[in-house]
Amino acid sequence: MALWGGRFEEETNREVAKYTESISFDRRLFRHDIAGSIAHVHMLARQNIIPQATSEAIERELLKIRDRMEKGDFEYSIELEDIHMHIESALIGVLGAEGARVHSARSRNDQVAVDVRLYLRDQIDLLLEKVEFFQKILVERAETDKRAIMPGFTHLQHAQVVLFAHHLLAYVEMFGRDAERLRDCRVRLNRMPLGAGAIAGSTLPIDRASVAEELHFAEVTRNSMDSVADRDFALELLSDLAIFGIHISRLSEDIILWSSQEFDFVELSDDYCTGSSLMPQKKNPDVAELSRGKSARLTGDLMTLLTMCKGLPLTYNRDLQEDKLAIFDALDTATAILTVYPGMIAKMKIKADHMRARAADPYLMATDMAEELVRLGVPFRTAHSRVGSLVKYCRENNTSPEKLTLAQMRESIPEATEAFLNLFDPEASVAKRESEGGTGFRSVERQIAYWKERLA
Amino acid sequence: MALWGGRFEEETNREVAKYTESISFDRRLFRHDIAGSIAHVHMLARQNIIPQATSEAIERELLKIRDRMEKGDFEYSIELEDIHMHIESALIGVLGAEGARVHSARSRNDQVAVDVRLYLRDQIDLLLEKVEFFQKILVERAETDKRAIMPGFTHLQHAQVVLFAHHLLAYVEMFGRDAERLRDCRVRLNRMPLGAGAIAGSTLPIDRASVAEELHFAEVTRNSMDSVADRDFALELLSDLAIFGIHISRLSEDIILWSSQEFDFVELSDDYCTGSSLMPQKKNPDVAELSRGKSARLTGDLMTLLTMCKGLPLTYNRDLQEDKLAIFDALDTATAILTVYPGMIAKMKIKADHMRARAADPYLMATDMAEELVRLGVPFRTAHSRVGSLVKYCRENNTSPEKLTLAQMRESIPEATEAFLNLFDPEASVAKRESEGGTGFRSVERQIAYWKERLA
Amino acid sequence: MALWGGRFEEETNREVAKYTESISFDRRLFRHDIAGSIAHVHMLARQNIIPQATSEAIERELLKIRDRMEKGDFEYSIELEDIHMHIESALIGVLGAEGARVHSARSRNDQVAVDVRLYLRDQIDLLLEKVEFFQKILVERAETDKRAIMPGFTHLQHAQVVLFAHHLLAYVEMFGRDAERLRDCRVRLNRMPLGAGAIAGSTLPIDRASVAEELHFAEVTRNSMDSVADRDFALELLSDLAIFGIHISRLSEDIILWSSQEFDFVELSDDYCTGSSLMPQKKNPDVAELSRGKSARLTGDLMTLLTMCKGLPLTYNRDLQEDKLAIFDALDTATAILTVYPGMIAKMKIKADHMRARAADPYLMATDMAEELVRLGVPFRTAHSRVGSLVKYCRENNTSPEKLTLAQMRESIPEATEAFLNLFDPEASVAKRESEGGTGFRSVERQIAYWKERLA
Amino acid sequence: MALWGGRFEEETNREVAKYTESISFDRRLFRHDIAGSIAHVHMLARQNIIPQATSEAIERELLKIRDRMEKGDFEYSIELEDIHMHIESALIGVLGAEGARVHSARSRNDQVAVDVRLYLRDQIDLLLEKVEFFQKILVERAETDKRAIMPGFTHLQHAQVVLFAHHLLAYVEMFGRDAERLRDCRVRLNRMPLGAGAIAGSTLPIDRASVAEELHFAEVTRNSMDSVADRDFALELLSDLAIFGIHISRLSEDIILWSSQEFDFVELSDDYCTGSSLMPQKKNPDVAELSRGKSARLTGDLMTLLTMCKGLPLTYNRDLQEDKLAIFDALDTATAILTVYPGMIAKMKIKADHMRARAADPYLMATDMAEELVRLGVPFRTAHSRVGSLVKYCRENNTSPEKLTLAQMRESIPEATEAFLNLFDPEASVAKRESEGGTGFRSVERQIAYWKERLA
Repeated sequence: MALWGGRFEEETNREVAKYTESISFDRRLFRHDIAGSIAHVHMLARQNIIPQATSEAIERELLKIRDRMEKGDFEYSIELEDIHMHIESALIGVLGAEGARVHSARSRNDQVAVDVRLYLRDQIDLLLEKVEFFQKILVERAETDKRAIMPGFTHLQHAQVVLFAHHLLAYVEMFGRDAERLRDCRVRLNRMPLGAGAIAGSTLPIDRASVAEELHFAEVTRNSMDSVADRDFALELLSDLAIFGIHISRLSEDIILWSSQEFDFVELSDDYCTGSSLMPQKKNPDVAELSRGKSARLTGDLMTLLTMCKGLPLTYNRDLQEDKLAIFDALDTATAILTVYPGMIAKMKIKADHMRARAADPYLMATDMAEELVRLGVPFRTAHSRVGSLVKYCRENNTSPEKLTLAQMRESIPEATEAFLNLFDPEASVAKRESEGGTGFRSVERQIAYWKERLA
Repeated sequence: MALWGGRFEEETNREVAKYTESISFDRRLFRHDIAGSIAHVHMLARQNIIPQATSEAIERELLKIRDRMEKGDFEYSIELEDIHMHIESALIGVLGAEGARVHSARSRNDQVAVDVRLYLRDQIDLLLEKVEFFQKILVERAETDKRAIMPGFTHLQHAQVVLFAHHLLAYVEMFGRDAERLRDCRVRLNRMPLGAGAIAGSTLPIDRASVAEELHFAEVTRNSMDSVADRDFALELLSDLAIFGIHISRLSEDIILWSSQEFDFVELSDDYCTGSSLMPQKKNPDVAELSRGKSARLTGDLMTLLTMCKGLPLTYNRDLQEDKLAIFDALDTATAILTVYPGMIAKMKIKADHMRARAADPYLMATDMAEELVRLGVPFRTAHSRVGSLVKYCRENNTSPEKLTLAQMRESIPEATEAFLNLFDPEASVAKRESEGGTGFRSVERQIAYWKERLA
Repeated sequence: MALWGGRFEEETNREVAKYTESISFDRRLFRHDIAGSIAHVHMLARQNIIPQATSEAIERELLKIRDRMEKGDFEYSIELEDIHMHIESALIGVLGAEGARVHSARSRNDQVAVDVRLYLRDQIDLLLEKVEFFQKILVERAETDKRAIMPGFTHLQHAQVVLFAHHLLAYVEMFGRDAERLRDCRVRLNRMPLGAGAIAGSTLPIDRASVAEELHFAEVTRNSMDSVADRDFALELLSDLAIFGIHISRLSEDIILWSSQEFDFVELSDDYCTGSSLMPQKKNPDVAELSRGKSARLTGDLMTLLTMCKGLPLTYNRDLQEDKLAIFDALDTATAILTVYPGMIAKMKIKADHMRARAADPYLMATDMAEELVRLGVPFRTAHSRVGSLVKYCRENNTSPEKLTLAQMRESIPEATEAFLNLFDPEASVAKRESEGGTGFRSVERQIAYWKERLA
Repeated sequence: MALWGGRFEEETNREVAKYTESISFDRRLFRHDIAGSIAHVHMLARQNIIPQATSEAIERELLKIRDRMEKGDFEYSIELEDIHMHIESALIGVLGAEGARVHSARSRNDQVAVDVRLYLRDQIDLLLEKVEFFQKILVERAETDKRAIMPGFTHLQHAQVVLFAHHLLAYVEMFGRDAERLRDCRVRLNRMPLGAGAIAGSTLPIDRASVAEELHFAEVTRNSMDSVADRDFALELLSDLAIFGIHISRLSEDIILWSSQEFDFVELSDDYCTGSSLMPQKKNPDVAELSRGKSARLTGDLMTLLTMCKGLPLTYNRDLQEDKLAIFDALDTATAILTVYPGMIAKMKIKADHMRARAADPYLMATDMAEELVRLGVPFRTAHSRVGSLVKYCRENNTSPEKLTLAQMRESIPEATEAFLNLFDPEASVAKRESEGGTGFRSVERQIAYWKERLA
């Protein structure tokens, strides 16, 4: 043993303390830790496990500690490892033996579980607010530009004419589902684990339901081992945020494309870009790019947590201390994105004339022609083939459908009527797609009205 | 160009067809593709877009095609690329122009979207059935062994005495949340995209609501671009399955540990193990190991789909064809796990005596002593310190708490009463943890009763 | 126990066999399994562990089995679980007791390890060939179009003028690093594990080095437990392929952008696209899109394997049987991509005139002006600011730098010389960037020459 | 626009600056940024692009800035965005126009590329040192305990007798491959990108090779677009660290198992555990658990970076600014693990007697018996079956192989000799596995000697 004897001694304590501490990141839970402790001592007093006066003294001192922490007037140290020990230790520092009653019928395992759930519940509420604000901005934007026409893309190729508002509303749908998922997640995490103790519950006559009520939990958890081992709520939340990140990455991709010299569909406000005094043509859509980049962190954080939980035996294992880093990073990232994005959308200028010009390609109305034929009774595949012939005719004769006479058109499409000559106006094309959910003007107005009411 | 001229020609068509085909995997959607087409032509006929007789003829022939596919009496070819084209082509082969009407007011983009949603809805229903069956088996198992006592673990260290049934019920909770999540996912995917067309909706007078009704969708999607671009339902489903995989990996880990010579808590049925005629001591828990391994695929499939969707511009991009491989692999994996796992649990024998012996360590009742003191009015941290002194006393005197006289005990714990002499019975320890969700016998019976009713 | 009694019996064997079999996917290892067995019996005979005649008989029969497997004339059954048992069982079927000697001093644990390494070594060689062929095509392409000029992008914004060839050569670099990584991985997996036995080595007088030599392994593994527990070679290979996938996804993104109506830089050959007879403007870059989608599977497969290996105790665990599915999927995906991609690049037409027109923006030469000033002794930031003033002047006077007289230019840039009037030609701009690795014509020619020699 | 007019104004600048800044994390690059700038100005002076005196002044001031940053005597502000601007701005603050020459023939795109490579090169060197130190500790540990015997596991079931040292040496192999991979990665990142400019190279007469030489790069990068777009070196490094994480997670799993009451093979030093004054039986292996948890972050960070890079068009995109967060987190995590782990291994006590007792099961020598028969000429499968009969005989007669007489043994194994009676000693079993890489005492000594020399 001689070889390594002494080499580690001096450094060990400091290094291990640094390695195992969580106070550097779990301190953000202080409000929720204190709220949990206050509800806990209220219950302990009601159940005569501690005296009423003790409960009151503890509450009073906890509120003082909270104030000091709010003000930044509190000293943290990695020796006290985590936020729970910091608070309990400060409490005992003042109250002595009375303070030492706070931890009755409780363990750090159920304490951290209730803290994190309380914190995430607040964070989800904040996210929901921000998601809905963002949806409102998108809907306003859609309403303001509700007549702007653009080419709609599949395979990044022009497919059909659509309204710019319709494109934006597709994202309102996505963020709407994100909000639904966050609400479902909130239901599932809104179950109170306190009282599970270290693992097996308590031998003291605790009343968990009343603690749940005071802390506004909808119910108590049903199994104490699950209560301390479970990280589902975090896995579900991080899944929801990863999917939200996908939506942001897609919207960002659209905006980056639209901002390129080649597309030139929108101009972002200078506030959200870096330019170059040398290269005035260059207006880098930094916020959109960074958001696309940050969306990757949301996926990575989910991966971290899934890998971390994989294969852990029941119940609590210290690995799970690391969950908070992934959870907090994902929350901070999503919150940051939602903080800057609405303003960028609100202040983005659209180049409606250029968009419309790009959408004025008569071939974008090819489906309109085929459906016009279906309306006249032609089977769809036949209609499709007729229009195909017309396209071929135009290419061979170096012309374009909207320039043909009816007679010329009938060479390819014998069923063509006068109406066919008027199929090539982008506005008219849009106007006809009034099927529910279509890009028609009225359909889009219905969508806008729906969302305005729902988000009101 | 000379250098590569000719080199690619011959092979190109075959190679590209092989690269781009999906019929090898999307053929499993045939029932749902046909169901969707039948509902679609019913609507087309109701709306007078196609004749009633055509609708009837198409329905009749589609059902015949379905029968042939069911029987394996249908030839597939990568030239026809995907399941939609195979079916439409077979239909036109028989009905000619009439068959060619089936694709009116529809595109492959909304068609595949409705197919996949119909398919996943069925798959979720199947998964829910299997998850609930598995929960029933776990609950039965818990009931059968409801008096078996074991050490409960934190940090893979003995922490407190728990019931084996309580440990199993923790997993019933986890799978219960999995089922909740699958049900939420089902709500969100149960929205009908058909009618979105390629991207912009239809110019024909379609009635989407009636198609939704016929196909038992709760509502129609609200935005056509979102309808063809969205893969949220798959991302959410794969997230749910990845989380389910985590639960399976943890249960598998527990079972593998329990089956080791060192733990020796359970004996798996030979059906689920490989043994060795050479090494009779060896009974490899293969099914548990493979399940833990397969859980990794659920995480990997989710990562595939997240990465695939990241940064795609609206709307449909061909990348998304690959989504089905990840979705199908995850579904097949989860289904396979749920097919073998219940039987393994049902047939697992527990070694109750050995488990109980491992739980009979008096130090596992240290918390009981501390809480007994709290009951007598001693502040928790003081109680904790008293018990700590007792432990020290025992170690120094090479004895053990359950062997002490009251007088000896009082050297460390002045408040100790006669009752303290009877704290070291594992059954008694369990019996006292009757707080809601605790491991007490009655608490566990309440859990069993709850689940039996809910799963009935 | 009554409730589930009998329910599982009938199905169990079949279901578990289906769950645990690997023959459906590991059969592709048959050549390597047989090669490994032949080298093994050669050694056993040399070491007098089995008779020489037995070795010869086994070799003869193994080669026959291989032939039957090659021809598809071999029946597989999930009862025999894996490829090793199929082959040994067929061997014993013919040779009886003699065949039963093949498995001396061997276990399935080291056998599968050597099989997979032999297989991957071949697969890496195949991949290297394909990567290098692809690089050659890119280099040829660069050479053919070596004077084509395009805007170079940062932030998807025009930044500076570059050669199209230079852009392609950036990918040659990336694929070059992929090849380097594959070669490094090959070195590390080219170590022979046979002889590790189940875990502890053999008590028989085996000669591992001679087996390694016969199988062309560079060395033998040094620790038997590591030999059967290790999956590094697969993790490393899948990492390499995931990074390769990133390169493919970026190249695909570039090609998809270039093929859009907005960029319109290239036209893909019809062989690699789907078009639409209705929408002639639409030529979907399916192969590029699918490749970008498939790249996600490479990331997902890596995540599967990392998650699978995480937290496994030594040595072999059955979880690892699943590794092959991720490995094979990644290999097949990468190979498929490399099979179609070179032809797509070779047959892609570039629209050189349009590209050049897009690059003719004088503001793309802003850096050239600044560097011209630096050449005259002006500090860079001052130079930068001078050119900024010029840009501002042009914008305010609604003109453009290339239209200014020297006098006008000197209002913003007092140091400007006649030479400044000739800075706005894209070819000239390119020609000046002859610093090593720059986009200058000669620099690009040097790169082409380098790669032609290296890939020869 | 009225609705949102004004709402965003006030906050926008601050919020966007906060969103886009990188100084909060890239400041750690300051030493490398300054080293890069010094080499750059040396070259600029040699090439007469700037005066020699300017180069000297810039170097002098840069060194002063570095000193201030080292001492923490430097003010950072998110307005100056990143470390490059902080340093250049401080330089110009002192030197005025002279300082403004530093950025000649350079862009932030190639500057950050060289900074990160320099930083990672140092970090890899540090990691290599730490990995090798850790290997040394493991080898010393193996040497100290080189006669300790334990059961070797497959499927977490006892398989064969092995040396504890052999088990540890398996990890030395794994970490050895980690070091190899890091060295390969270092080769690939040790190529100098400076001179690539923003994207296209420089028009000034720079000499990249001499900068590379001064900064100890082995070569310069070959393509300027690749130089600023490439993140391979980071992807490769993070892959290497993820694989290293897998090794750590497996070693941690082993240690956690060994520390459990059930295994009881080792006792960790108190320094690396938390105990409980209440539950003396409990000694939580926190450092091992946290390390297993932290390994998940290494996988998650890799996932973040892969997802981030996926589908980005060439060349630089702002998404890539986020790469540093994943890179730094992975480096810090790996470094932290390597800082605490060696001490934990060095101070871990093994319970050699208990380990040996667990290994003394005669069935662990079943393979020895079979191989003894092979030695006598019995075909392996026959030998296997003979031993199987013996096992059955023992079980039926409630005895154990080591208790049998030769006559009894011969009932099952007619070929048995006297030697068979002495097969059941664990030391003897180990001693016979002297095949290369086996667990034999001499084989293990050879491994130790190999590593001692190699790590010297």
